[in-house]
Amino acid sequence: MEQKKELIYLQIANGIERQIKHGVLKVGDKLPSLRTICIEQGVSLSSSSQAYLELESRGLIESRPRTGYFVSFSHKNLREVPTTSQPRLTNASEDPEEIINTITSNAARANIFLSSGVPALSLLPVAKLNKGMIQAMRSLPDSGIHYERQGNPKLKQQIARRSLSWGGKLREQDIVTTSGCMEALAFSMMALAERGDTIAVESPVYYGIPLLAQSIGLKVIELPTHPVTGVELDALEKAFKKNRIKLCLFVTNFSNPLGSMMPVENKKALVKLLEKYNVPLIEDDLYGDLYFGDHRPLTCKSFDESGMVLWCGSFSKTLSAGYRVGWVAPGKFLEKVKRIKHYHAISCNALAHETIANFLENDRYENHLRKLRQTLHRNTLQFHRFIGDYFPEDTLVSRPQGGFHLWVEFGKRTDTIELYNQLIQHKISFTPGRAFTLQNQYNNCLRLSTGLMLNDKVEGALKLLGKMASR
Amino acid sequence: MEQKKELIYLQIANGIERQIKHGVLKVGDKLPSLRTICIEQGVSLSSSSQAYLELESRGLIESRPRTGYFVSFSHKNLREVPTTSQPRLTNASEDPEEIINTITSNAARANIFLSSGVPALSLLPVAKLNKGMIQAMRSLPDSGIHYERQGNPKLKQQIARRSLSWGGKLREQDIVTTSGCMEALAFSMMALAERGDTIAVESPVYYGIPLLAQSIGLKVIELPTHPVTGVELDALEKAFKKNRIKLCLFVTNFSNPLGSMMPVENKKALVKLLEKYNVPLIEDDLYGDLYFGDHRPLTCKSFDESGMVLWCGSFSKTLSAGYRVGWVAPGKFLEKVKRIKHYHAISCNALAHETIANFLENDRYENHLRKLRQTLHRNTLQFHRFIGDYFPEDTLVSRPQGGFHLWVEFGKRTDTIELYNQLIQHKISFTPGRAFTLQNQYNNCLRLSTGLMLNDKVEGALKLLGKMASR
Repeated sequence: MEQKKELIYLQIANGIERQIKHGVLKVGDKLPSLRTICIEQGVSLSSSSQAYLELESRGLIESRPRTGYFVSFSHKNLREVPTTSQPRLTNASEDPEEIINTITSNAARANIFLSSGVPALSLLPVAKLNKGMIQAMRSLPDSGIHYERQGNPKLKQQIARRSLSWGGKLREQDIVTTSGCMEALAFSMMALAERGDTIAVESPVYYGIPLLAQSIGLKVIELPTHPVTGVELDALEKAFKKNRIKLCLFVTNFSNPLGSMMPVENKKALVKLLEKYNVPLIEDDLYGDLYFGDHRPLTCKSFDESGMVLWCGSFSKTLSAGYRVGWVAPGKFLEKVKRIKHYHAISCNALAHETIANFLENDRYENHLRKLRQTLHRNTLQFHRFIGDYFPEDTLVSRPQGGFHLWVEFGKRTDTIELYNQLIQHKISFTPGRAFTLQNQYNNCLRLSTGLMLNDKVEGALKLLGKMASR
Repeated sequence: MEQKKELIYLQIANGIERQIKHGVLKVGDKLPSLRTICIEQGVSLSSSSQAYLELESRGLIESRPRTGYFVSFSHKNLREVPTTSQPRLTNASEDPEEIINTITSNAARANIFLSSGVPALSLLPVAKLNKGMIQAMRSLPDSGIHYERQGNPKLKQQIARRSLSWGGKLREQDIVTTSGCMEALAFSMMALAERGDTIAVESPVYYGIPLLAQSIGLKVIELPTHPVTGVELDALEKAFKKNRIKLCLFVTNFSNPLGSMMPVENKKALVKLLEKYNVPLIEDDLYGDLYFGDHRPLTCKSFDESGMVLWCGSFSKTLSAGYRVGWVAPGKFLEKVKRIKHYHAISCNALAHETIANFLENDRYENHLRKLRQTLHRNTLQFHRFIGDYFPEDTLVSRPQGGFHLWVEFGKRTDTIELYNQLIQHKISFTPGRAFTLQNQYNNCLRLSTGLMLNDKVEGALKLLGKMASR
């Protein structure tokens, strides 16, 4: 009996493995539910779950909470992950502005946005937010007409409440609300550093960060960063010793563009380093809620006992970028950051902050996030499949566990700016790698955004991109 | 016939003058319409208008477009205007933060806000704005969910269009939209100056301005300022020669707290000075639309041929502070300011900017402004009357031609911070003069806000204030 059962689950597992190897089931495809397997194959629920466990252990499929099982990364065509980046450890200032301006001015020409910094409208709860905005006009006694000098108290409370999911001990009064995450980063930088100071960032890094730092007179050091585990801590410590770093800014969960997530041990070690060298960290955690796994990843702030971490985030990547709702929990720099907000902005948009606060008060946000995460995870798997099928053999690609960016590295001879200029003729946009650094590097790399509705056109666009990159 | 007619109009005029002198008619009171005079006195329209012209020429009454005639400032009890301020012409940094914090933390205790920086809710078109917000959700294709990276084009167009009223030649592409006027000032300062540079401002000056300047590392020079004509240009030129001023920031129309309006000739002369010494001006024109006269005052920007003037404004004082809708027309510094906005904020709140843009497209804004101006003018006249009736004999008070602030100067021995602490016990708040400077001065002054619904309680509050100041 026991042996027969074993045979059955192995039979099922082997059968599915065959289908995956032969391409009947492709990366990102959803597998039948356990119940369907029971009915189709006439087996017990314990046999079907054991079969799926076996396939999981072989790295062929993966489960997603409350959704089901999917064919996972371990596809025959799955590309390798790029190696750790190797930026020069000096203050660099070779501006990527020209490329960024090109992309911005071409924005209206594209109709397939593989360059988008936010999820497509169809993935966001537009109707619910509109309704919430009307509700906010009623729930705010002044309909949001007057200044909101202290920040929306409900919003601060909800952000503090949600911090429990990553072991945060934040209280309402620890939060400063801002008009989006960039403002949180800007206020934090201005609170911590002066013209001439040096800031350490990841490499590649979202271009807005070094450009912001430069605009307030900071020098920027890019650090070697691994696509899976994030910033190399050895390199960081070297920089602490050699370069007189005044502050750090890292995206510790699902960084943009690499998608790296610092392992818990690294986060802990990083906080220790910050304390040892007395260097504060601006932790840009704006993608943290977009995890593919079954729990919210921790943050450096989770281990921050001394108040050295300024934990920043926003709802721009999950609800609405146009609302401008972000925050920072500035740790021991609270009063400084509050003062800068007071002088530079006085108040945020009262209605938008109330709308988001109301949205967080009940299950709406979690329900929306669950769907959004599933879509983004599925899209990521499918993008891997398309890349496997259409991109040159030697292409490397990141394997993020959250967010909606993929970092693609072609062979050394591919010039992604040239590629961009070709693709935009076909109304397809992506972001060339050169945008993500102040050094002359990543010219053979690009960033793809997966935050869109997948359809044949998107597959066609990736196919064309792969074809052109192969030339 | 001609002589009899003259007699009649003089009879009427003299009769009204008597009523004013005897206090039957008080400053701020509305006079009967010309038509009512005709009916009541059985005279012709030409006689009644001639009577009012005569009273106007005697400085006893004044007409307000489309509203009627009012008893004007020239009341027997009307107080003198303070003289030109005499700040030290050195970089000062004696922070008024403590007082500002006191006022902020006491805000909830007051129920008569003579300290408010914005008009009371009852003077603002709340219902129309709410309706406009719902309309904006429909008129924006993405309901305002996504970034608005280039600024709302309709809003920029409307701001440019309205610049005609002061002889501006602005085009849509000359405008950078911002989240309120403070952001416009902050971006302009950051575009023009670096840590250690010196900025020249009025004195007294809205406290947000020097605190913002200091927060980005600027030194602040306060200039002698006249309550009627604004900054003394001779002193400014001396400062240009002596203090290496990097930039100026003046509120040229209805400054806060003085209410001064630079005469056209001074504005012209100021622009010439800026050109001669190559110093840019941030022209903070946020009260310009709130004039009491019959036309919109000109700006320095009206005479700016060389692009040295960065003209800033917002709708915070006329429609909604909580929406955060402002702008700057940065002249020749356009690209610099655009870049700073792009790095520090990415985008403003899309829905609020669309709502205001729609509001400006038809007559709604002008109709609202007309009513608001009338209320503020009437309030100002009435405040003068209350001050005349209740404040100590030697009180000096500004006589603004727009906006909603009055600057009151008591005898040297009065301490307005002490006065504030007494009044807040009675739930009445105003702003002590010490808040409006980085030097230890104006301790016997205060700012009153007239942007509220006048009623017996307000009169009672001013009476109490006057009584306590008399001790």
